[in-house]
Amino acid sequence: MLPLITGSTRIYGLLGDPVKSAKSPMLLNRLFAETQSDAVCIPLEVGTQGLAEFVKGARAVRNLAGLLVTMPHKQAMLEFVDVLHPSARQIGAINVVRCDTDGRWEGAVFDGLGCVLGMQRQGVSLLGKSVLLIGAGGSGRAIAFAVAAAGARSLSISDLDPQRAADLAHRVTREGSCEVHAGPADPAGHDIVINATPLGMNPDDPMPVEAEQLNPAMVVVDIITRSEPTALLLEAQSRGCKTLDGQPMHVGQALLALGFLGFEDIERRYSEGL
Amino acid sequence: MLPLITGSTRIYGLLGDPVKSAKSPMLLNRLFAETQSDAVCIPLEVGTQGLAEFVKGARAVRNLAGLLVTMPHKQAMLEFVDVLHPSARQIGAINVVRCDTDGRWEGAVFDGLGCVLGMQRQGVSLLGKSVLLIGAGGSGRAIAFAVAAAGARSLSISDLDPQRAADLAHRVTREGSCEVHAGPADPAGHDIVINATPLGMNPDDPMPVEAEQLNPAMVVVDIITRSEPTALLLEAQSRGCKTLDGQPMHVGQALLALGFLGFEDIERRYSEGL
Repeated sequence: MLPLITGSTRIYGLLGDPVKSAKSPMLLNRLFAETQSDAVCIPLEVGTQGLAEFVKGARAVRNLAGLLVTMPHKQAMLEFVDVLHPSARQIGAINVVRCDTDGRWEGAVFDGLGCVLGMQRQGVSLLGKSVLLIGAGGSGRAIAFAVAAAGARSLSISDLDPQRAADLAHRVTREGSCEVHAGPADPAGHDIVINATPLGMNPDDPMPVEAEQLNPAMVVVDIITRSEPTALLLEAQSRGCKTLDGQPMHVGQALLALGFLGFEDIERRYSEGL
Repeated sequence: MLPLITGSTRIYGLLGDPVKSAKSPMLLNRLFAETQSDAVCIPLEVGTQGLAEFVKGARAVRNLAGLLVTMPHKQAMLEFVDVLHPSARQIGAINVVRCDTDGRWEGAVFDGLGCVLGMQRQGVSLLGKSVLLIGAGGSGRAIAFAVAAAGARSLSISDLDPQRAADLAHRVTREGSCEVHAGPADPAGHDIVINATPLGMNPDDPMPVEAEQLNPAMVVVDIITRSEPTALLLEAQSRGCKTLDGQPMHVGQALLALGFLGFEDIERRYSEGL
């Protein structure tokens, strides 16, 4: 249940295609209700071809206060905002737009930082840890930068395309003091394993890592959000690992996005645990 | 309180400028909640200059299912829809747009019919009655046609601009069997008096009718929606008249708009009384 929507309620859109299974409107509206914020999040299904027209029209809506941006618009939105938050420049993508009252739109991305915050909220610190990251695509890129910034000792990046893994490792190396390199999908010697590939969405998918190398000292994170655990998480659990599914990252992203949108009170209140 | 908004919730906008005091989102969301309809109504504040861009952008939003249209866009929307409902052609205005899944937008106007339905829901029938209508502007025009169609015996239309009253009387005469003419703002001899001017919004406004002619057999309707009764309604009450404020018309409009938007169940369930 949600609070009343009146003529003065601030409107936030979840922009994507498709949006049918999007979870952000429910999460944000719950947080708005619990904090008695006069705001509402609604899904807006816009295809790639309609994005430019949508943005022009949305800029005419004075009470539109922000957009959460999901697939397939995370890269395309870069050219439709007026200001890029450092996160968006670094990652080359946007997952939230703040529509300021002076008409300026600023874009940021909290996929990676949200993943780290989600892990921290579940008691998993990255400080001094050795991390294996599988996948150097959009989500993997964001997570790599955030893992390095969160104080990991080392980061090994694995991708089906070794060049893509090497390129990302090279870029992340320049950002901080974490030792970053490309490598195989082998958990041996790592403290934390993060799957940032879509492998596990479908029942026939191969395992994203060499699962026989998992041991009970490891934490295994799979960013896929489904109601059922992925094969990787089931295998990790059977080997005694602590596991996290995509939900903590989703909540972490949402909290950081809300802080960026001006709801610092919500971000503070929930960042330490729900 | 409202039901959950998910990725599959249909979106309805209340389009106007300003929208701060708009009551439709609260009313529609209450009706959606009570009937467990997976739909939500949100305010969209768009100025005159932004309307064309807004419409192009809104057409890119696949889950936008309709718009309620209020000031100042009721006439301007005529050129942005693909199909005009007979009501919109007759009145020359639009207060609701249905966005069909094939991309076609159809516009209709239920201001007048909503006023009549609101009166009926309060036990005031127009059948065989003599009606004095004050104001031949946008709302007055819509109400004149609806009063004639509802079976009034006669309709006298008064306006500060006598030519505007005469023109409207002439047009409504052609539509039905009601005897319609322009005349003074004098309630004498009428059964029902309807104020469709803005007189009464401000404390210094003159009385829209010759109030000393009101008698206890008369019903006095003031379409202005405010929390406090207008001076006209207070005067009418002191003279023993039955009075209706703008709320019944607002609810009547909303029910007819919901029927047009496909919520025939809501229209049926509430049309006989809330």
